[in-house]
Amino acid sequence: MNKITQMLMEIVSELSGKPAGAYNIREDGQCAGRQSTDHIRITPKTSEPGIDIRVLPGTMGESVYIPACITHAGVNDLVYNDFYIGDGADVTIVAGCGVHSDGEEEARHNGIHRFFIGKGAHVLYLEKHVGTGDGTGKRIINPQTQVQIAEGGYMKMDTTQIKGVDSTKRVTTASLGPRARLVIREKLMTHGVQMAESDFTVDLDGEDAGVDLVSRSVARGQSHQVFRSRINGNTRCTGHSECDAIIMDEGVVSAIPELTAANIDASLIHEAAIGKIAGEQLVKLMTLGLTEEEAEAKIIEGFLK
Amino acid sequence: MNKITQMLMEIVSELSGKPAGAYNIREDGQCAGRQSTDHIRITPKTSEPGIDIRVLPGTMGESVYIPACITHAGVNDLVYNDFYIGDGADVTIVAGCGVHSDGEEEARHNGIHRFFIGKGAHVLYLEKHVGTGDGTGKRIINPQTQVQIAEGGYMKMDTTQIKGVDSTKRVTTASLGPRARLVIREKLMTHGVQMAESDFTVDLDGEDAGVDLVSRSVARGQSHQVFRSRINGNTRCTGHSECDAIIMDEGVVSAIPELTAANIDASLIHEAAIGKIAGEQLVKLMTLGLTEEEAEAKIIEGFLK
Repeated sequence: MNKITQMLMEIVSELSGKPAGAYNIREDGQCAGRQSTDHIRITPKTSEPGIDIRVLPGTMGESVYIPACITHAGVNDLVYNDFYIGDGADVTIVAGCGVHSDGEEEARHNGIHRFFIGKGAHVLYLEKHVGTGDGTGKRIINPQTQVQIAEGGYMKMDTTQIKGVDSTKRVTTASLGPRARLVIREKLMTHGVQMAESDFTVDLDGEDAGVDLVSRSVARGQSHQVFRSRINGNTRCTGHSECDAIIMDEGVVSAIPELTAANIDASLIHEAAIGKIAGEQLVKLMTLGLTEEEAEAKIIEGFLK
Repeated sequence: MNKITQMLMEIVSELSGKPAGAYNIREDGQCAGRQSTDHIRITPKTSEPGIDIRVLPGTMGESVYIPACITHAGVNDLVYNDFYIGDGADVTIVAGCGVHSDGEEEARHNGIHRFFIGKGAHVLYLEKHVGTGDGTGKRIINPQTQVQIAEGGYMKMDTTQIKGVDSTKRVTTASLGPRARLVIREKLMTHGVQMAESDFTVDLDGEDAGVDLVSRSVARGQSHQVFRSRINGNTRCTGHSECDAIIMDEGVVSAIPELTAANIDASLIHEAAIGKIAGEQLVKLMTLGLTEEEAEAKIIEGFLK
């Protein structure tokens, strides 16, 4: 594991050194460390790059760390990670991704994650993305997340793009069984001429399934963001989608949520608001002695917390 | 003017007989009556079917009635109506459309309405659509409305589809100048196997322009509705879009609103909610002695009022 990977892992996983429990560290497309536990088996795939993570039924309170780091320009990493979460298991998965470039070429990570969440299982999925380094080459992260949640299963997906990622296209699809629940919290900050696109599709297929999707984002500089969500209520179910965006400078944000109720007992709601920081909020903080820049930073910190 | 036209005009324009003031009655693609006034000139187009309506600057408190009626199956009517509203005028335009069919063939009205609204002018535009008759042929109404509002102008568009229209695709586009304001209220009820699609695009191009778009709809039977709105905030402006839908039986509703803020001083909001009638509302009315059907009808009446 090189020093840049260590630096990126500290940012995306809050780890210094190797974690306790199960982990798989991916560095420039190679394995830089792997450990299974009694309840969580990590095995490399044979037909394509990536790993299978099998969490045994009933596993309680364990974590899996699977950071992926790109440490120099000219890398185009593609990985398929599949998560099989046994019935009744309760686990935390920390899946950060850092892309570092000091060169002129692109540094790119494409991670395709599939989740098969068993009956009554409970998954907290944390995903932090960051770009670092002084190179002119673009830092690109394109994650795809495909989720199937069986009866009574639960997943919370907490996804954050901190800074430094020049281009991202995040595609998430989910299919929820009876009484399954999916909670998504997205936080996104773009600056410079960055481009970020989020695309969520959730099929509420099982009775009393529910999704709660909240995206909060800040677009600064000349950055451009597109938020899309599709919630399909195919049975008795509830869906809520919310997109709140702050624009600054010459930032541009589009929000395109789509609700389809195809069953009389589907109850779907969406809200979106895009605008700049309220003047009175700035004035209040400046009255307390902050400069305009400090006041802005404070407000954004609170908004994305 | 035949009896079916008279019946349809009563429904869509609340008129019995010819109105006072300016009017143009269109019956099966022909003119069944026309009258101009000193301030409102109606002239037929020479190059295509339709009329030009010119409202002189400063005209106050006058109305224009332009009902369009299809009275039998096998008619496919296409009409281009252009409205030139002079600076500072204040007028009401009543533009209902009724399609009647007792036959097996389609009865179709396609109305393309263009509005050029002058500085500080004020327009109330009322549009009611209805289908009648026992024929098996489809009753189709496809209105296109294109609106340009100059500095300080105002338009309220009140559009209602009562019942009996088998298929409708409504496309509305608007471009707003400085301090111009557009208010849209859409009410829609579909039943049987009807299909209704609404598509609104509003460009907020002038400083302090504003749009307020509210759609309320009920989808019964096996009917299908799609609501699309696009609000583009290109300068300092405000935009609000709201879509509330009640589904009954096997009705299906999609809501696809799109907000794009391309300026730091654009403030855009959207809300959507789709669901069935709340059980507690029904119970409350039934406690007061109403049957379930009566209670439902009462709630829908209030929702679409």
